[in-house]
Amino acid sequence: MSNLKEECGLFGIFANETCDVASTAYYALFALQHRGQENCGIVVNDDGVFSSHKDIGLVEDVFMARDLQELGYGNMAVGHVRYGTTGINTQSNSQPMVVNHHKGRMAVAHNGNLVNSYELRQELELEGSIFHSTNDTEVIAYIITKERIKSASIEEAVERAMDKIEGAYSLVIMSPSKLIAVRDKHGFRPLCYGQRSDGAYIVASETCALDAVDAKYIRDLEPGEIVVFSKDDVKSIDTHMNTAPHKICIFEYLYFARPDSVIEGVSVHKSRMRAGACLAMEHPVQGDVVIGVPDSGISAAIGYAEQSGIPYGIGFIKNKYIGRTFIAPGQENREDKVMIKLNVLKDTVEGKRVVLVDDSIVRGTTIARIIKLVREAGATEIHVMSSAPPFMNPCYYGTDIDSKENLIACKMSTEEIAKAVGADSVGYLDINHLNMLLGTKPNEGYCHACFSGEYPTKEPEVTAKNRFEQKISEK
Amino acid sequence: MSNLKEECGLFGIFANETCDVASTAYYALFALQHRGQENCGIVVNDDGVFSSHKDIGLVEDVFMARDLQELGYGNMAVGHVRYGTTGINTQSNSQPMVVNHHKGRMAVAHNGNLVNSYELRQELELEGSIFHSTNDTEVIAYIITKERIKSASIEEAVERAMDKIEGAYSLVIMSPSKLIAVRDKHGFRPLCYGQRSDGAYIVASETCALDAVDAKYIRDLEPGEIVVFSKDDVKSIDTHMNTAPHKICIFEYLYFARPDSVIEGVSVHKSRMRAGACLAMEHPVQGDVVIGVPDSGISAAIGYAEQSGIPYGIGFIKNKYIGRTFIAPGQENREDKVMIKLNVLKDTVEGKRVVLVDDSIVRGTTIARIIKLVREAGATEIHVMSSAPPFMNPCYYGTDIDSKENLIACKMSTEEIAKAVGADSVGYLDINHLNMLLGTKPNEGYCHACFSGEYPTKEPEVTAKNRFEQKISEK
Amino acid sequence: MSNLKEECGLFGIFANETCDVASTAYYALFALQHRGQENCGIVVNDDGVFSSHKDIGLVEDVFMARDLQELGYGNMAVGHVRYGTTGINTQSNSQPMVVNHHKGRMAVAHNGNLVNSYELRQELELEGSIFHSTNDTEVIAYIITKERIKSASIEEAVERAMDKIEGAYSLVIMSPSKLIAVRDKHGFRPLCYGQRSDGAYIVASETCALDAVDAKYIRDLEPGEIVVFSKDDVKSIDTHMNTAPHKICIFEYLYFARPDSVIEGVSVHKSRMRAGACLAMEHPVQGDVVIGVPDSGISAAIGYAEQSGIPYGIGFIKNKYIGRTFIAPGQENREDKVMIKLNVLKDTVEGKRVVLVDDSIVRGTTIARIIKLVREAGATEIHVMSSAPPFMNPCYYGTDIDSKENLIACKMSTEEIAKAVGADSVGYLDINHLNMLLGTKPNEGYCHACFSGEYPTKEPEVTAKNRFEQKISEK
Amino acid sequence: MSNLKEECGLFGIFANETCDVASTAYYALFALQHRGQENCGIVVNDDGVFSSHKDIGLVEDVFMARDLQELGYGNMAVGHVRYGTTGINTQSNSQPMVVNHHKGRMAVAHNGNLVNSYELRQELELEGSIFHSTNDTEVIAYIITKERIKSASIEEAVERAMDKIEGAYSLVIMSPSKLIAVRDKHGFRPLCYGQRSDGAYIVASETCALDAVDAKYIRDLEPGEIVVFSKDDVKSIDTHMNTAPHKICIFEYLYFARPDSVIEGVSVHKSRMRAGACLAMEHPVQGDVVIGVPDSGISAAIGYAEQSGIPYGIGFIKNKYIGRTFIAPGQENREDKVMIKLNVLKDTVEGKRVVLVDDSIVRGTTIARIIKLVREAGATEIHVMSSAPPFMNPCYYGTDIDSKENLIACKMSTEEIAKAVGADSVGYLDINHLNMLLGTKPNEGYCHACFSGEYPTKEPEVTAKNRFEQKISEK
Repeated sequence: MSNLKEECGLFGIFANETCDVASTAYYALFALQHRGQENCGIVVNDDGVFSSHKDIGLVEDVFMARDLQELGYGNMAVGHVRYGTTGINTQSNSQPMVVNHHKGRMAVAHNGNLVNSYELRQELELEGSIFHSTNDTEVIAYIITKERIKSASIEEAVERAMDKIEGAYSLVIMSPSKLIAVRDKHGFRPLCYGQRSDGAYIVASETCALDAVDAKYIRDLEPGEIVVFSKDDVKSIDTHMNTAPHKICIFEYLYFARPDSVIEGVSVHKSRMRAGACLAMEHPVQGDVVIGVPDSGISAAIGYAEQSGIPYGIGFIKNKYIGRTFIAPGQENREDKVMIKLNVLKDTVEGKRVVLVDDSIVRGTTIARIIKLVREAGATEIHVMSSAPPFMNPCYYGTDIDSKENLIACKMSTEEIAKAVGADSVGYLDINHLNMLLGTKPNEGYCHACFSGEYPTKEPEVTAKNRFEQKISEK
Repeated sequence: MSNLKEECGLFGIFANETCDVASTAYYALFALQHRGQENCGIVVNDDGVFSSHKDIGLVEDVFMARDLQELGYGNMAVGHVRYGTTGINTQSNSQPMVVNHHKGRMAVAHNGNLVNSYELRQELELEGSIFHSTNDTEVIAYIITKERIKSASIEEAVERAMDKIEGAYSLVIMSPSKLIAVRDKHGFRPLCYGQRSDGAYIVASETCALDAVDAKYIRDLEPGEIVVFSKDDVKSIDTHMNTAPHKICIFEYLYFARPDSVIEGVSVHKSRMRAGACLAMEHPVQGDVVIGVPDSGISAAIGYAEQSGIPYGIGFIKNKYIGRTFIAPGQENREDKVMIKLNVLKDTVEGKRVVLVDDSIVRGTTIARIIKLVREAGATEIHVMSSAPPFMNPCYYGTDIDSKENLIACKMSTEEIAKAVGADSVGYLDINHLNMLLGTKPNEGYCHACFSGEYPTKEPEVTAKNRFEQKISEK
Repeated sequence: MSNLKEECGLFGIFANETCDVASTAYYALFALQHRGQENCGIVVNDDGVFSSHKDIGLVEDVFMARDLQELGYGNMAVGHVRYGTTGINTQSNSQPMVVNHHKGRMAVAHNGNLVNSYELRQELELEGSIFHSTNDTEVIAYIITKERIKSASIEEAVERAMDKIEGAYSLVIMSPSKLIAVRDKHGFRPLCYGQRSDGAYIVASETCALDAVDAKYIRDLEPGEIVVFSKDDVKSIDTHMNTAPHKICIFEYLYFARPDSVIEGVSVHKSRMRAGACLAMEHPVQGDVVIGVPDSGISAAIGYAEQSGIPYGIGFIKNKYIGRTFIAPGQENREDKVMIKLNVLKDTVEGKRVVLVDDSIVRGTTIARIIKLVREAGATEIHVMSSAPPFMNPCYYGTDIDSKENLIACKMSTEEIAKAVGADSVGYLDINHLNMLLGTKPNEGYCHACFSGEYPTKEPEVTAKNRFEQKISEK
Repeated sequence: MSNLKEECGLFGIFANETCDVASTAYYALFALQHRGQENCGIVVNDDGVFSSHKDIGLVEDVFMARDLQELGYGNMAVGHVRYGTTGINTQSNSQPMVVNHHKGRMAVAHNGNLVNSYELRQELELEGSIFHSTNDTEVIAYIITKERIKSASIEEAVERAMDKIEGAYSLVIMSPSKLIAVRDKHGFRPLCYGQRSDGAYIVASETCALDAVDAKYIRDLEPGEIVVFSKDDVKSIDTHMNTAPHKICIFEYLYFARPDSVIEGVSVHKSRMRAGACLAMEHPVQGDVVIGVPDSGISAAIGYAEQSGIPYGIGFIKNKYIGRTFIAPGQENREDKVMIKLNVLKDTVEGKRVVLVDDSIVRGTTIARIIKLVREAGATEIHVMSSAPPFMNPCYYGTDIDSKENLIACKMSTEEIAKAVGADSVGYLDINHLNMLLGTKPNEGYCHACFSGEYPTKEPEVTAKNRFEQKISEK
């Protein structure tokens, strides 16, 4: 029920034989759909010939049977799902981006956000470069292209490019003959690979995509690692490894990733259950039932119930038939649409003291509506538990946690928030217990900037999005 | 995950003032979508002028904003969602059926199945009647029309028609000035009504549709009851009440209805939890985790867990982005499509003895696929619990429980079934405990013919569907 | 450019062998599209099993490749294109109408309009009949069904039905084993048949549909004739032949039919050229160029040019890319949309005295816009020639020539019309010369009621359309 | 009926006030649709903010009412229709191309083909430039961007760029504050401008687009001219004027342009009539009727008829309902689809010696099908007249007159062609009479390279299209 949006999901396949890579990409992107619902695309490489299909929409809407047939067979493919800012030119921002340079074609798919794209872009423009899009991917493609001229191979160009680009980036790059997976030196965004029984290698943002295409998980890329898949060879380039502290985004565990994914060895579902258990210890309440807000509050609710001994109950029935074309006549705002989707199961909450677990509280409007519904269904007390600490700062690494004005925790105390949203009490996960989510991982292995304000990189001068979509005058 | 299909969901509204009845119908049908996903329709009555929009598809796909605008405002409306047999002429089978007779227009929406429609239809045809559709609704409309000639009012015609039609039928009928709700004398299918704060009466198959339009539940219709809503009046006609034993379909509780609905005073969710608890008592096993097959196995799984003390776990993650246009390239059969939708949460089942609860076992193919997935995810034992007893007989009352050839329980013992589907054991709810589902209701208040073969009515001579869609030769 | 609408186009095929009758119907309906652009439908008969596909829209939009595949192969098919009144329930008015009666299935396709449908319908309703649609086709289907009970065969039932139904009707009727073509005793609407080289018989409203499916024209049906196609037999029933004067609609030649069709032995194009030649003799003017309004004014313009010796010129260029989805932003009325489609070829008219030939003048608004455009392009004089006489009366036989209020010729003299539309002069074809269009055919062989007011039948009491779509109240 | 394809149509508007430029562009592109049916696009400039909408499809399909609303009001817009090669990545080839460079945004729309794009592209790539598309427009955008760095203004950059790019190009370029129209020094492709009554300037490929938006024609751009529209100013830059011989494409008159357009003072319709008259003098035959192949053969047929005295007749009826979704079941090749669209008007040709006029003969397959149809309709002799001389050479200037292998005139003598296509005789316009088409224009003012092989520029080393879409390998 949180309204935060992840920017992207990545997929790549390298097979030694020509096969139906388009269908594989389709299944994988479908499994990664939760990472981006605005655009998606697949580029197939059939012995150096690139075919691509990209559009605005969900995977199942963008790819009809005919589209997959036209993409056809090949030995490589890259795929991408994307959440992007709406507005100008969204089609030209679709990914994977395919560009032609002096050594041929290259497809680039990117998850994350650079912190120096404004500077890089200015530099490139002063050399006479033109840009078709307003996104970081084109900047990355340019930097690699420029380095390619001085490099012996595409992977060397990528290696050099990593000296220039800063920030959060997981990349899947496809040249005519190679597939290259890259994770930035902090490892902000996840990226892993596995292998199918026919030997084909699969690269994906999350393991749920490996499951979807029957590939066996091999390992996550290390922060700063480049893995190059080519004919009969898998090569790791480690020059950027161990050059910066490990900073996986903790919100991947709390909200973005699918619960059946395993990131860096930690089950997402388990990490959420642990968050719920932590909340039960930090904020014990007298309750009769624990319910979770679907879908991402459920795991934590079960964790809270197990730890506290208060029974878990099904609090909401979701109308599973809601889709893209639902029109909500007479309902003006987005919150109403959320409510049409959910009906409270009165039996579960009527006459009870309810512990209501959600993944996070951003603006507070959605949780307020939910609390109202539960109250109307007869709950006598409602204690809200947020498995994320309070959001206090914007994120520069590929999510849309925005300016402080919209974050309720920047404006009110916890008590004030409880009152504002209509809860009897509100409990946030203690920022100091975030490390518990990851089990045995060391405390400083993750990024918590949105909670703490401690940014692992410099902060961007200008956020690229604003820069390039603003009004421009020329003499 | 069961593949059984309910035939229909009904909706009606009677307002004293002209208002946006089309939007109200839209929201209500959306809440009833689980009762039928093939066709849907709304007919609006604006002071005697009927406007209708019906088509093949889900509510949100059939009704665009423009369609609702064109239906416009009115003081009455009826709506219908339908699951029908595919094939010939499905559009002409859409409901509500609007017919013109000598007293004007009439719209009829029907949920259920007659057992004497073949005989009635033959009789009508010999009088020169023509039929546009192959469904029972047209037969019902004809009978009412014929009786209307001899009757002083539409409700009298309906009352007389009830002497002729036999079987399962809940009806919502709209004349130019009245809305009439009817339930057959056995009460096979549910039907209830409520009232909105503006005074408008709402009739619906389930209470979840009342919730969706902010109406307060008043009561269920009694078996055999006719309720007539007209200007400033609500009238009950009781001539057919208490003329036959009460026979609400028990499978409405086990599978068809939405868990947040309350039928005849019994919460559907609660009845399922009770079924799970019964199973725990009837079939105790040594297990480490109880999981439910989404969506309708979840409530029973929680009931089993609570009763047994074995912890409840989330066994499956559903891909919520699957929709109507998903193409499943390379996957031929329907079972594969089911699997694309579900991924096992390995953490929950790996290395564990799993109790797997589902709503029912029909052909056994789906559960076999699910068991295979859970086994591959590392479960050491899998004990399947079906919250329905074994299906042994076809249903003639509006569901598609079909011929004995397709029912696995007709062909194998429980042990053989366990072996066939790959389970360590299979436990079915004892048919003698079905009454437990309803709490304090007396034993014989429900229909269990599909399990027991004890049909409350005569069995149909010819099933209408087959009769009218077979090859026909004429001299 | 006239805005008059024909009601329908008919098609039927009877093959001795199973073949791709759906595709044949598709091509034929496409060739008949000018006779109706609102709905269309095809019903295929595969050895008694009927499959149908009907919808609102043009042939090419209603039938996708998949639809034709689903209709599949068969030995018979009927097809229909329709222009109908917009509004309530247009889908249920789609044709061919498929009904089930006591002897099986029957499909009925109808072109024309009855003059006693109100009386017939009242009679049927008093016997308890219900109607799904508001059109005459259902009335016809009922009458045939009722007669079928007393008849030895479907063709005998049709023969008897013809005693009851009055007015304009060409019919194509399909029973499980026969295809029956019927033309009313006046022969208001055309109907002909031919044969393909594989022996299959084709029935169609116009010969252009025979051309489209490579069938050789055999003959037109006689007024009052029934032709029955069955296994190895073609039978003519003549009981209704020669029982009334021949009254083919003269406006079929002037406007409705395609110029490449031949009706009752007379080429439509040639008849229009003759109309143009007549106009040149009746209304000689000093002109420099003759131009025609596309598409149906072109033939007459060429006829005028040849007869008068004034050179023919291309006056307008039509934008052939205009289609159903053209939105005409900022243009409110239909006339503007017409203009977007046409651009005057300045070279042809600049500085010239122009003879402008159109098929007819109904309300006068369209011709006024066209005259304005030609004037702006530099014409010094504009003499308008209408190849139809002035419309003075409504048509009850299947066209939408409407009430006198909308007919400009009912309200003004020819001189006043010229002034109102901005022409230097207006010339109408003399009603006494209409027989010239048909060459050697006798004077009274056609219906000219819309010009003369001499109706060949009784006038209808109530026009059915109004009766059944009006507000209805019931006690 | 010719299958040659023009590459593009251009549109631009510069208004001093904000107005509905998107709708204006829509109407203009609709009028230019014949110049390109594959892609189209509009870019609106609202005080420096660019909004664009581009897609594959016809104008009316790409632009829904909502799209025009979203493009919104502005003071400038550019639009483009395009015929492009099918296949890889057509969406990324859509125009106008919008690029971001160091001085802001720029939109470029291009009609024509460069002869040195391969060299330019190689040069740019070696500097590290990346390309998103395979078309010349991106090369042009790059060259202008690079020159912009050294230039004081965008128009100076364009002026400098013209020193580098060679070949056929008409351009409309939009900067944040200026609209710039450019024609190459040979003037291969047309470009003109006019003014609306509100003062807004309109640039378009043809005058028919000025008519469509109610703009008054001012003049054609001179070859080599740059016209800059800015706030309160229209400026002509003449540095490239009169630096090369004038070479307007003669095939614009014969086939590409709309007959109601006037190019460089010559009416296209009149030029075609003159071609027909020439043919009558060069190839006199004994005929009974002259018919033209729709649409572009009609004007020449009328010219032939007037000159020869043989009467003009309507030879073909076109089915105007054919559209994008017509599926032609059972018809494999494109020629069949053409035939479905045309039906011969038997009356016109039966028993006659027919003079059949078409715009050109390329491969000979289409004319052979048409001849067969006319022969089957009863023509006793068929004399084919081509208003274009024989095609002997490929075109490098923006049309798809292709390799010699596909040109029938390269392989056969005129007599052999007549035999091959089934004609009694074939007559081509004499290449020496082409100047007659233009009336009083001097002989060498047009390009006739496709007939004569005399190319006004160097021939391209590699045709860009092939170069960039071929298989590419990278080490």
